[in-house]
Amino acid sequence: MIVGFDVGGTNARALLIDPTSGEVIDRDRESSAGAGPVLLATLLRMIQRLLDRNEASLEAVGLGVAGLAHRSGVIRYSPNLPDLVEYPLGSELGAVLGVPVTVMNDATAGTWAEAKLGAGRGSNDFIHAALGTGIGTGFVCGGRLIHGTNGFAGESGHMVVDANGPTHHTGQQGPWEYYASGSALGRTGQAQAEAGHFPAALRIAGSVAAIDGFTVVAALGAGDAEAARIFDGFCRHVARGLVNLALIFDPERIVIGGGLTDIGEPLRAGVDQWFDELLVGSSHRPKVLVVMAELGDDAGAIGAALVAADTP
Amino acid sequence: MIVGFDVGGTNARALLIDPTSGEVIDRDRESSAGAGPVLLATLLRMIQRLLDRNEASLEAVGLGVAGLAHRSGVIRYSPNLPDLVEYPLGSELGAVLGVPVTVMNDATAGTWAEAKLGAGRGSNDFIHAALGTGIGTGFVCGGRLIHGTNGFAGESGHMVVDANGPTHHTGQQGPWEYYASGSALGRTGQAQAEAGHFPAALRIAGSVAAIDGFTVVAALGAGDAEAARIFDGFCRHVARGLVNLALIFDPERIVIGGGLTDIGEPLRAGVDQWFDELLVGSSHRPKVLVVMAELGDDAGAIGAALVAADTP
Repeated sequence: MIVGFDVGGTNARALLIDPTSGEVIDRDRESSAGAGPVLLATLLRMIQRLLDRNEASLEAVGLGVAGLAHRSGVIRYSPNLPDLVEYPLGSELGAVLGVPVTVMNDATAGTWAEAKLGAGRGSNDFIHAALGTGIGTGFVCGGRLIHGTNGFAGESGHMVVDANGPTHHTGQQGPWEYYASGSALGRTGQAQAEAGHFPAALRIAGSVAAIDGFTVVAALGAGDAEAARIFDGFCRHVARGLVNLALIFDPERIVIGGGLTDIGEPLRAGVDQWFDELLVGSSHRPKVLVVMAELGDDAGAIGAALVAADTP
Repeated sequence: MIVGFDVGGTNARALLIDPTSGEVIDRDRESSAGAGPVLLATLLRMIQRLLDRNEASLEAVGLGVAGLAHRSGVIRYSPNLPDLVEYPLGSELGAVLGVPVTVMNDATAGTWAEAKLGAGRGSNDFIHAALGTGIGTGFVCGGRLIHGTNGFAGESGHMVVDANGPTHHTGQQGPWEYYASGSALGRTGQAQAEAGHFPAALRIAGSVAAIDGFTVVAALGAGDAEAARIFDGFCRHVARGLVNLALIFDPERIVIGGGLTDIGEPLRAGVDQWFDELLVGSSHRPKVLVVMAELGDDAGAIGAALVAADTP
């Protein structure tokens, strides 16, 4: 059995996975708070519980971590897990457990899960874009997952698309994630409510400050015209970055995942329409499929386990 | 022996290559003008001459073509070779010759040549950016060349970096190539000369209309301060797109090629400096090497031959 982890800024999610089928046998979750040694103890505790409950033996561990996870197992940079930076989580875990531990970026891990068991099945060339607080991406090219030389590939959320645009918290002007993350959808909703153009959102959320991406989606579901306008603009921003990536990778399909996946068809259709509109030479290219991810919140941990299973 | 072609908007360049060593045995060149059947006859003539002169037998042909070269061998879109669009050049050539013919994008081909014999040697993960009239790019990830599902990968010159920027001839606003191609360098030089800020360029070129990228480079070489200012801005634009690509791919190095390679160290050093300045989290990453391409104008034809040699 393999344990796959998705270590985010708030929680560490663990799945006990059968590496041959990819089946999720059991699951666990704890807070990811604390410095390296604390998180190490947390992960060890979760592994032990999963193994004990299922009378399983451990073959390997895969860790998907939000941030620049070096392939050596050291987290080099992670705004969401600042206490973890420069801690050799992979090698420490491997030393205690005596099994191979593979460390990777969480979005990269989720991409491999979608490739093997989700919306990327049957595709050798696809882009996975997870839209949440930020944007995480991953790429399968010629049937292989792109890791990069360090394991840092897929930081496309930081790709600058509007060099004279507003300054993001990264210090960059106009990165894709500023416009096309779930946070961006909420920010636009707040701005329109503040300006008095979006009473539906105020009714739903109670205050401007309480409006987030899901508020806009709720107003959209209720048929509000301003929500439809904001959402259309959002889909355009999402598509704009995906067009850049499609020009670079020439994918067969695009898989949209992350926290906004629950929106479903309106998001898929909106992005799909803008994508075709914005893609240079689209009339000369076979249609790029735009589909929704299938594995939800489990993608990162499943993918981490599957990459660990495939790592020699 | 393998014949590798680089088919551009003006000329078709042919190299007779020894596939085991990559050595260039002989070379030929003709105009690439004319519709599909005309170009077919041109390529066949060149192949025959190369084989006759060297008493060689033909094992395979590789074609690098400027444009969207579908892996089936059909050129789907090529602003520089409009007469060739939708002509099945690969299969027609294969039918006449009775050997495998592999068709690919010219920048993709050049990338593989640099990987095997040039500035990408020894690197499993690098980005190749050819700066010329436009920008062509190619990627090696985990030791493999990225083709994309159709063979269209590497159109990064069309990546939008300034969504509210000027409109390019592609119809897009603010694509990377608008700012960072050789044409862009010439355009900036013309604008500054027009405004009276760049007398050195006027002296070199004779008129505003005659100023191109090489004029700016000549003025730079002569120590002109305005040329240095323009060139620094140009290096920043080149680096900006490379930073986007580095965030996506996490390369070990970046290889700068294309018609501007002759500038040499000033271009390499200028791009290198801006790259580190603009890369998010650069202090947390190992240094990305910035190097100049080594194979010059031969890269496309050599790479086409080497890809053809590697194609089963």
